[in-house]
Amino acid sequence: MTELREYLDGPHKAARDVVRDGLASHASLLDAGLRLSRDEYRDEVLRTLKEIAAQGHPSRGFPKEYGGQGDLGGFIAGFETLAFGDLSLMVKAGVQFGLFAGAILHLGTERHHDRYLADALTGDLLGCFAMTETGHGSNVQSLETTATYDETTGEFVVHTPTASARKDYIGNAARHGRLAAVFAQLVVGGQTHGVHCLLVPIRSDAGEPLPGVTLSDCGPKLGLNGVDNGRIVFDQVRVPREALLDRYAQVDADGTYRSEIENPDRRFFTMLGTLVQGRVSVGGAAINASKVAMTIAIRYAAQRRQFGAPGSPEEALLLDYRMHQRRLLPLLARTYALHFAQAELVDNFARIFGADDGAPRDDSDGRGGGTGGTEHDRRALEAQAAGTKALGTWHATEAIQMCREACGGAGYLAENRLSALKADTDVFTTFEGDNTVLLQLVAKGLLTDYRRSFGELDPLGTARFVAAQAVEIAVEKTALRGLVERLRDVVPNRSDSADPDAGLRDDDYHAGLLRFREQHMLAGVARRLKAGIDAGDEAFEVFNRCQDHVIAAGRAHVERVVLEAFQHAVQAAPEGETRDRLKELYDLHALATIENDRAWFLEHGRLSGPRSKAITALVNELCGRIRGYATDLVDAFGVPGAAVDVPMVVRSQHE
Amino acid sequence: MTELREYLDGPHKAARDVVRDGLASHASLLDAGLRLSRDEYRDEVLRTLKEIAAQGHPSRGFPKEYGGQGDLGGFIAGFETLAFGDLSLMVKAGVQFGLFAGAILHLGTERHHDRYLADALTGDLLGCFAMTETGHGSNVQSLETTATYDETTGEFVVHTPTASARKDYIGNAARHGRLAAVFAQLVVGGQTHGVHCLLVPIRSDAGEPLPGVTLSDCGPKLGLNGVDNGRIVFDQVRVPREALLDRYAQVDADGTYRSEIENPDRRFFTMLGTLVQGRVSVGGAAINASKVAMTIAIRYAAQRRQFGAPGSPEEALLLDYRMHQRRLLPLLARTYALHFAQAELVDNFARIFGADDGAPRDDSDGRGGGTGGTEHDRRALEAQAAGTKALGTWHATEAIQMCREACGGAGYLAENRLSALKADTDVFTTFEGDNTVLLQLVAKGLLTDYRRSFGELDPLGTARFVAAQAVEIAVEKTALRGLVERLRDVVPNRSDSADPDAGLRDDDYHAGLLRFREQHMLAGVARRLKAGIDAGDEAFEVFNRCQDHVIAAGRAHVERVVLEAFQHAVQAAPEGETRDRLKELYDLHALATIENDRAWFLEHGRLSGPRSKAITALVNELCGRIRGYATDLVDAFGVPGAAVDVPMVVRSQHE
Repeated sequence: MTELREYLDGPHKAARDVVRDGLASHASLLDAGLRLSRDEYRDEVLRTLKEIAAQGHPSRGFPKEYGGQGDLGGFIAGFETLAFGDLSLMVKAGVQFGLFAGAILHLGTERHHDRYLADALTGDLLGCFAMTETGHGSNVQSLETTATYDETTGEFVVHTPTASARKDYIGNAARHGRLAAVFAQLVVGGQTHGVHCLLVPIRSDAGEPLPGVTLSDCGPKLGLNGVDNGRIVFDQVRVPREALLDRYAQVDADGTYRSEIENPDRRFFTMLGTLVQGRVSVGGAAINASKVAMTIAIRYAAQRRQFGAPGSPEEALLLDYRMHQRRLLPLLARTYALHFAQAELVDNFARIFGADDGAPRDDSDGRGGGTGGTEHDRRALEAQAAGTKALGTWHATEAIQMCREACGGAGYLAENRLSALKADTDVFTTFEGDNTVLLQLVAKGLLTDYRRSFGELDPLGTARFVAAQAVEIAVEKTALRGLVERLRDVVPNRSDSADPDAGLRDDDYHAGLLRFREQHMLAGVARRLKAGIDAGDEAFEVFNRCQDHVIAAGRAHVERVVLEAFQHAVQAAPEGETRDRLKELYDLHALATIENDRAWFLEHGRLSGPRSKAITALVNELCGRIRGYATDLVDAFGVPGAAVDVPMVVRSQHE
Repeated sequence: MTELREYLDGPHKAARDVVRDGLASHASLLDAGLRLSRDEYRDEVLRTLKEIAAQGHPSRGFPKEYGGQGDLGGFIAGFETLAFGDLSLMVKAGVQFGLFAGAILHLGTERHHDRYLADALTGDLLGCFAMTETGHGSNVQSLETTATYDETTGEFVVHTPTASARKDYIGNAARHGRLAAVFAQLVVGGQTHGVHCLLVPIRSDAGEPLPGVTLSDCGPKLGLNGVDNGRIVFDQVRVPREALLDRYAQVDADGTYRSEIENPDRRFFTMLGTLVQGRVSVGGAAINASKVAMTIAIRYAAQRRQFGAPGSPEEALLLDYRMHQRRLLPLLARTYALHFAQAELVDNFARIFGADDGAPRDDSDGRGGGTGGTEHDRRALEAQAAGTKALGTWHATEAIQMCREACGGAGYLAENRLSALKADTDVFTTFEGDNTVLLQLVAKGLLTDYRRSFGELDPLGTARFVAAQAVEIAVEKTALRGLVERLRDVVPNRSDSADPDAGLRDDDYHAGLLRFREQHMLAGVARRLKAGIDAGDEAFEVFNRCQDHVIAAGRAHVERVVLEAFQHAVQAAPEGETRDRLKELYDLHALATIENDRAWFLEHGRLSGPRSKAITALVNELCGRIRGYATDLVDAFGVPGAAVDVPMVVRSQHE
């Protein structure tokens, strides 16, 4: 299956292989969390972080003028591949190179780049991305920390005014960080200009908290204990005017605030647009973590025997049981689907963000500030990143859980690694944007159809925003109203056919069903919003009443995008066994996706009862066929042996 | 809500309150797993175990003649309540008092009771229940460890013949256990008599492994690290003849094997019947662990604000969001449903097993050996215990996961306890019988309808057994074939009514739907088994083809039993607010259960599309109403403050 593996690795094979090779050299980190105290583990993660920095992983993603290779796609692919190893290392790398160095690159200007980037990329300057506050997780626009300009000294005074304004959950804050990119309400001349980012030193070279800075440790977590998450409280901490990352807004010495982006909301969302990289990265990491778990569970199931046919001298292999196939193989198919969706996302990301030359940009040309690509491209990318992150991380939670259960008690032992995968990935559904918030962002983007959207789209997808826009959306989107009826005619529905199996493996049929669902749900949401507003109800209430509907619509959209990515990947695959197997796996994914929500299709007249049952029967049949080469499919992920040669698998091989 | 809390506590309030009070005295154990090294944590758990033993918890469940109170129901209720605290303590108590002391009580005779029980109940004699082997988890009948009688010395020789015969995952084995109840193939005079249990010393008083005994540590686990799970290998270890727990089978000095139960399968299953207590206990513990998580998550959601209405000075409470209600409140309703189902189970268990006087019993009266109650009662109880354990433990996994996600990043911090709840309970779906195996046991019991079943029912529900019986089942159960058609006429289905909401809150309607589904699935399985056998296919293959169907049928049965238990509880509740609220919560549970599987009801013509959507709308509406008193509902669980007053909740209260 070399061909399949190469096809999966795609254009960034080299970047992936560098990280794979690196995993061998720091394989001992895989059980460091079990061997070491928490602080020792954190230090070991840091040591390894510097190793991978020396091997060139992070610099790959940075512009050439700062010693990098300007290869954003390869950088993300390499980062994803870190998820084959210890996940604390992956997250710490994300904090240091993605968030901290990324904030300096994208929000700062040349003087910040020159002063900090090189050291940030080697890990010599360790930093924090201090956005989240105790009282404000998803709702970044409500942050309370202040940065008040004092024109008498030319300094900003950074301050934590309330308990809920404490910076919380900040990676690198508890132990290693020296400099923090702090998000705060910028106050100049008594006027608040919204959230901006400043660089604030928090620790001395010797590691002591600096005056006015109180640092504490979030303490042990369910997982990721190799990352030193901490809390930061500022008591009137003074930093020079140059500490402001001033790409999008500047404060003159005399206290004049200037920004090329006049609309404060638009400015805020432009600055936050840089968060998209974190979402692309976490989604990819989650998908790769699920590959590790699937590899372990499927190899185990292909070796482990339990019970079996009466009179047979040997017990049966777990993977030969219908129920075991049912539990694992649709998840394996979905892992492939998400892999291809993620690959499309990374391509788009590299194309659009890779064009960013790091220079200040006027947005008067309609392209907006911050990165390359048109405004439309960037909003579409943000939605795609949000959706893939949500589905990829929920998938990881579900798939790893199922793998643990499918391996029984052995799956619960730390030595078999599923426990660490489970514990470490669990928070992926929450960080870099809570999944339910992200799916609302996706749906909202679809409702506003990307047009007229600049300045209205907040990357964190707040309910507040949607509610405020509900009237406008509902009124202007009445075009959607006729959509359902039109779709009813064009979507193929062969359930009237005499043969309920007819066309069940037809790509267009699958895509048609998922498109119908997506459009129908969006139209329904738009109608409900409009009806509520027309009735004079309060906008927040109107939105809240259909929040579950909004989220379902967002999910339906992403599932369709993922399905189509898998279709494209099958079409582009090398002819022969590779394409044939991918097509069979695609069919399993498509039909299992429809089966999961068959209630909706039945309710909406898109499936008949017999056809719905035929889909279930075909899912079972496909599971039975794919079982024959399931181990080849996990081999093709190319997870390094150190990560998957766990005792229960190695032992089974020898029994 | 004192009335509701007392109603939930039921007849075993006193036993529950003793354990609740005890939790206060060992509250420091709650973070011991975070503060201490693994070995220190284990020792701290042991110290607390002895404390609760001194407080009288375990002896409550043992016969009066051994210093106990003979109150099995109270014993289980107390054990369940231990799940409000540190779960390692709960599991270690289960190993020591339930499994180890239980094996001595139920499988041994007076000399074993006199010699060991008192010390086992104080914790002075720490023991293991050494059943599972590396190669044999669920399939106990295939255990490989041997106990060979040597008539020249009057000893049994206990031996581990292969690597897969190693005793594995044994609680108390890694550090504290002195004596092990070892399950082994009994060989007398060259003849194998199947699995029996013997007491084998494994450690000296000083804690050193005894000659011939090799002990090792399973090492760190995802959770439950306060339990010292270990592995045991025996190299020709000799124990006296009296070491055999000989209630059901005896070996004379001259090597004559005798048993009052002639059929070896029947003997085996009678011995394993004592496992039912473990299943009852674990199911109850899982349900109580989910109460802790629900209490934390709902109190947090009722205090934590994020986003909100535009222009509003305050952000909105999480619990006011539709999606948040949707995620948490149906799970809260199901927690109540399972609580009442578990209470019914414990009643039955205490009634049937409480009648066991510990004396040997001939089964020629058709009542079978082992415990009180008729054979039919005991088989029904085993199925009820298996089903409740499966659904209760899966519920815990799902509910605690949802609570973690609903609390965002704060839910991931160890200080807020959801992480420990998640990690510790995760293996509950596996131990004391893998859930998928247990649901097969349930379905098989239903297929054979409890008649003609003695000697055919294995408590571990092996596929091997079912396959062997498939012909007989299929042929003799043709009576089921007509059932579906008859049910189609009697189950109310008001979906033809003009009003799709009509009768949606009618108890009989809910029960009718779930009964229809159960019977339809069972009949379908029976038909498929018969068709396969008639076609001449191999029995194992025939069974395996419909394994997912079998498991779905088992689940459908248990869901119906749980639903009806909730109905009974509403009917018996004090009139007024308590009953009214319980009825509303019951309706939410019933409708959410139907909604979860509405695809099936749609496929089988029991719901129309409009009615299915009406159910979803009503679930939403009920969530909105119950939100008003959701915190009262969790208060009524009576989880001690130490277990739920976590920083994120206490902090929110003060903000």
